[in-house]
Amino acid sequence: MLQENLTLNTDKYQVNMMYAYWKKGVHNKKSVFEAFFRKQPFDNGFAVFAGLERIAGYINNLRFNEDDIAYLADQEENYDPAFFKELRNFRFTGNIRAVPEGTLVFPGEPLVQVEARLLEAQLVETAILNFMNYQTLVATKAARVRQVAPNDVLMEFGMRRAQEADAALWGARATYIAGFDSTSNMMAGKLFGIPTKGTHAHSWVQKHDSEEEAFKNFADAFPDHVILLVDTYDTLKTGVPNAIKIGKYLESLGKRMKGIRLDSGDLAELSIKARRMLDKAGLNYVKIVASNDLDEYRIEDLKKRGAKIDIWGIGTRVITCYDDPALGGIYKLVAKEANGSYQPVIKISGSYEKVTTPGVKTIYRMLNKETGWSEGDYIGFVDEEIMGLDRSAVLDPGRFEAVEIPVPIFKGGQQVYKLPSLDKIKAYHKKQLDMFRPEYLRKDNPKTYAVYLSEHVRNTKMALLRQHNQNFNEDA
Amino acid sequence: MLQENLTLNTDKYQVNMMYAYWKKGVHNKKSVFEAFFRKQPFDNGFAVFAGLERIAGYINNLRFNEDDIAYLADQEENYDPAFFKELRNFRFTGNIRAVPEGTLVFPGEPLVQVEARLLEAQLVETAILNFMNYQTLVATKAARVRQVAPNDVLMEFGMRRAQEADAALWGARATYIAGFDSTSNMMAGKLFGIPTKGTHAHSWVQKHDSEEEAFKNFADAFPDHVILLVDTYDTLKTGVPNAIKIGKYLESLGKRMKGIRLDSGDLAELSIKARRMLDKAGLNYVKIVASNDLDEYRIEDLKKRGAKIDIWGIGTRVITCYDDPALGGIYKLVAKEANGSYQPVIKISGSYEKVTTPGVKTIYRMLNKETGWSEGDYIGFVDEEIMGLDRSAVLDPGRFEAVEIPVPIFKGGQQVYKLPSLDKIKAYHKKQLDMFRPEYLRKDNPKTYAVYLSEHVRNTKMALLRQHNQNFNEDA
Repeated sequence: MLQENLTLNTDKYQVNMMYAYWKKGVHNKKSVFEAFFRKQPFDNGFAVFAGLERIAGYINNLRFNEDDIAYLADQEENYDPAFFKELRNFRFTGNIRAVPEGTLVFPGEPLVQVEARLLEAQLVETAILNFMNYQTLVATKAARVRQVAPNDVLMEFGMRRAQEADAALWGARATYIAGFDSTSNMMAGKLFGIPTKGTHAHSWVQKHDSEEEAFKNFADAFPDHVILLVDTYDTLKTGVPNAIKIGKYLESLGKRMKGIRLDSGDLAELSIKARRMLDKAGLNYVKIVASNDLDEYRIEDLKKRGAKIDIWGIGTRVITCYDDPALGGIYKLVAKEANGSYQPVIKISGSYEKVTTPGVKTIYRMLNKETGWSEGDYIGFVDEEIMGLDRSAVLDPGRFEAVEIPVPIFKGGQQVYKLPSLDKIKAYHKKQLDMFRPEYLRKDNPKTYAVYLSEHVRNTKMALLRQHNQNFNEDA
Repeated sequence: MLQENLTLNTDKYQVNMMYAYWKKGVHNKKSVFEAFFRKQPFDNGFAVFAGLERIAGYINNLRFNEDDIAYLADQEENYDPAFFKELRNFRFTGNIRAVPEGTLVFPGEPLVQVEARLLEAQLVETAILNFMNYQTLVATKAARVRQVAPNDVLMEFGMRRAQEADAALWGARATYIAGFDSTSNMMAGKLFGIPTKGTHAHSWVQKHDSEEEAFKNFADAFPDHVILLVDTYDTLKTGVPNAIKIGKYLESLGKRMKGIRLDSGDLAELSIKARRMLDKAGLNYVKIVASNDLDEYRIEDLKKRGAKIDIWGIGTRVITCYDDPALGGIYKLVAKEANGSYQPVIKISGSYEKVTTPGVKTIYRMLNKETGWSEGDYIGFVDEEIMGLDRSAVLDPGRFEAVEIPVPIFKGGQQVYKLPSLDKIKAYHKKQLDMFRPEYLRKDNPKTYAVYLSEHVRNTKMALLRQHNQNFNEDA
């Protein structure tokens, strides 16, 4: 699952373009592509980049097996068999730079940059976007939930509603990066070391002759980890009273019940009443867990209504990114090899925001030296001395430290980046958040964080735009 | 990918319940669970069941490897090591019945029924729901698109926006079942034999010094499969005119250009103008392909506005089920072993629609003997002689043929169902559609298709409900 060969996880047009480049003999020419998105998901103020570990595993395992070749040989395109010789020797030999997972990122920023032979750069587009789009989306959604519940425990519970197995697995990982505390997904626990948590289902209660017996048997199996689901029959009439009996029983064994879980009904009202009942019984240490289609909006609403909920079990709405289920990340050619150097390339469009920014770029985060706050990002060419070139006040080198965000991941086909442990990524993400003023982070109507283009980048973009407009006029 | 071991693709609470059952010594007791959904996705009139091939592969590969055991042994729950002996010998030994893929299904119908030892039936819940929920959802969305474009070519293009790799793969398969003609996903092509189609990207044009040269090189590589993307610079001023030149060039080689692709702008207006230009140039055989965030609503709108589009490339909105990205399928205990036979079990709830229907059930489709139309589904107990028991006119055995829908998939842990080829599933789905009157199939405000419970099922449900209410009164 981590070391799968996903070489054919690509669109057919990539293979066809590879073939056409090869046919023309230009497949070894180098080019640079950059992956970015244009619009923040969920109208959030930031996105949380994720997907890099998956991308690295994918790149390392790229090769066309004989059964892949046999499949291609069977296509209606009738590829020249000599092409397959090229594919048999295919390895990724290029360079990749990317922002580390957990980084706060913004529209237009080059998140993954692939510099490689056309043959390679074309093949990897689809999978890179697939991984980056989904994992970044989930991490961003999870970060929004964390914003409204900064001090609560967040458990990821979405596997059964995730869009297939990979989404459950990599989605759980993305939520953990962005501040969730655990997942119910055992595969994610095994492969990524994420703490796994679970309670029991309604069926556990139904299987027994009585709710109390069901609770008792569960407590006997896990005396140190008892969280009881109290809504199978009637939360306040039977569920909580039976849970209190078990709490007392556990006390008689010198143990403490961990919690009760509410999974239906008015969670605010039920939690307030259940809290009162637990406290009255001397079980003030027992936590209240809630689940049932939760997301940042419902959690915020429940909190406003005084809900006494300590732990949130969050499924469907985060793992599927219910209110905005696709990040529109794209992968665009920004430079092509010509006469031994790179020539910037633009993709024009009728609408200016769809015009791409040409050239091989990097991102600097401008940290205020006095306050430590991030006050804007700055996109320059990789080979540009940015601090000297631009005179705008915001970039006054006296006031700001420019921290370059992307790092080399692959050089000459070799992975040079040591993937951080998941807990390091999580800690890095938290540190990232700490560098942004609250107005950029808030869930609703966040302030727009500034992303500047260097003068050089802007001028190059404008020059290419003019050049293309001119061409149009000549054509017309 | 088809034969993965996904045993730990489960929620922790399943493992904990398995352990607690085992601890109590009742893990070998049998029970029956049924998977169903309560509400049609997209407010559609029907759903298209999919996911069975995935489920069968999963069940056949169920076993706890030593590294799974090592992972479990490391959990905070401190499972008794004797439990791992049980897990090492774990195999699925139960029975599974399910409706065939491609079947039109309705709320409350038992789609997958698992009869197995508690240990097994509990483990498989999460993965079965994960597979069934997503694949059924996508197939249903794809069926909606097919409804508005009954005679057009539909190409699945969603991989880059799918929620990770499995969603792209199994989602492509689901769209094919429900009437799509091809996919861009090469892995889906290789593993499932779905025809794969592709054109070229904007980058292909950008890489060349001119659009015309780019088109020419592409045509030379694939003279029999030329579809040219015409919107890189200006669709009507350069794209279509350059494509026409290539069309003429291909004619000079005795070939015919297949199509042009529009990917931005007003697709209705552009397609009408492009059609006129192509026709005027004598290229009336060249098809127009459109892509760009399409779904059933946009296609319907474009058609209303007279768009001249023959082939639709459909990505994001179908593969992520953008407007309703989760099917709420659930898996509920319906019967438990007691004294050697099954005792029906109910899950009650404050809202009647959340009350489960107890007992081991099956579905009959009632076909009008005269017209062949499906006029309702009928849910009875598996061991019930349905036609004799119920006197309601709609089930008059003289007028209707009752066709049982679920079929045995596993018996005693052995797969007894031969998975049909994908093209057979697709044909079966089409035949299913042909049995439903148009008012059930239409995209907007479809007529609600009737699903009846047998008298026996209804009576059992009511009796159990009364029994539980009584219990509440006694408790209160």
